[in-house]
Amino acid sequence: MTENKERAVVLLSGGLDSATTLAVALDRGLEPWVLSFDYGQKASRELEAAAAICRSLGVEHHLILPLRLDALVVSALTSKEAMPSPEEIKRRFGIPDTYVPARNTVFLALALGFAESIGAYRIFIGANDMDFSGYPDCRPEFFWAFNQLAGLATAEGVGGGRKVQVETPLMNLSKGEIIRLGLSLGVDYSLTISCYAPLPDGSPCLRCESCQIRVKGFRELGLPDPCCAPSSGR
Amino acid sequence: MTENKERAVVLLSGGLDSATTLAVALDRGLEPWVLSFDYGQKASRELEAAAAICRSLGVEHHLILPLRLDALVVSALTSKEAMPSPEEIKRRFGIPDTYVPARNTVFLALALGFAESIGAYRIFIGANDMDFSGYPDCRPEFFWAFNQLAGLATAEGVGGGRKVQVETPLMNLSKGEIIRLGLSLGVDYSLTISCYAPLPDGSPCLRCESCQIRVKGFRELGLPDPCCAPSSGR
Repeated sequence: MTENKERAVVLLSGGLDSATTLAVALDRGLEPWVLSFDYGQKASRELEAAAAICRSLGVEHHLILPLRLDALVVSALTSKEAMPSPEEIKRRFGIPDTYVPARNTVFLALALGFAESIGAYRIFIGANDMDFSGYPDCRPEFFWAFNQLAGLATAEGVGGGRKVQVETPLMNLSKGEIIRLGLSLGVDYSLTISCYAPLPDGSPCLRCESCQIRVKGFRELGLPDPCCAPSSGR
Repeated sequence: MTENKERAVVLLSGGLDSATTLAVALDRGLEPWVLSFDYGQKASRELEAAAAICRSLGVEHHLILPLRLDALVVSALTSKEAMPSPEEIKRRFGIPDTYVPARNTVFLALALGFAESIGAYRIFIGANDMDFSGYPDCRPEFFWAFNQLAGLATAEGVGGGRKVQVETPLMNLSKGEIIRLGLSLGVDYSLTISCYAPLPDGSPCLRCESCQIRVKGFRELGLPDPCCAPSSGR
């Protein structure tokens, strides 16, 4: 049924932005091959959310790849015991300690290999420069450089064929604009989780930066966050 | 004892080129933090070789990272069953089927995260453009583009600090020149394995492209390959 659709790799964390990005790819008539990473993040509920979002949007192909990023890098989002230099985080220049070294570079590199293997030429990622300008690997120039690399990194691209390119449809949208877009495309935000440090019952902490940006986004639209509404049953 | 040495990440496959690269990094007075990947390659003997090379050169830090590249990409070097599009390989433009989609992009991205976490600014990789010009991700322009990306991808680099950069000391050497360099630096090539499809007893097939290039390299120098010599006990 979906034989003739163009394939696209979509990176899905289980958060609000990536869920919206997946809906955008579907809206563009693409067949999403969704890729999530089990990389030792503390909020492993993200992966349950990612699976629920895929089901909700009727996605057929969802791969959760184990990735021992926690053995390799130090970040407040992963285990702190793995590597011996947590002082690295402090050395950084005003960048939140939730930054995971080279995370988007790693995720996009794996997405590139996946794309090349399944015959996809577009990789969607929900990066956004409005709210998280502190992360080096969320900025437009980072993605521009990655696309230059991708054009040189794949067999077909180098051979004169089509190059794989990363698309960032949310790059310049505010959180409110992202939510409005997603709602118009049928995203069920009650399934998404944006919190960096969910409470034991799985509900968002409403204190971390990610929660606060999300709350602000829904407020912009004058809407309750379905994730936090008592009626959502969570 | 090695407190004051500059750290460098060195990618080590267990083959001739990467072993030589490790020796180069040591010769430059760096403290190598060696990274190998268990990515489902058929020649998993490579990883035993990598460990033996580290011991032989007195390397203290060697991390073997599991990486389910076999679940993600299709190549003659990894399992063929994982993904449904082996026909991709044929579509490629004269590139050997031992090409693993985006492999060097993935390896360097992970090395970048590792480097940033341990406070290293140099990543060594034994890429060589003389013998394997068919691989898109072994060419100088690929590494140039990766370095552009790396400069935009890390917290410290973006914050005005030192950028992480990839070094390819073997790029323009012939196989014979690489071997001569390694021998001068004390590399024990009997420990290395270059074969894509080792025989059941672990000895090299001497038929695959990688074996043939290696044999030619030793012949250039008028030396036997210690890996294949009967006296090596293998």
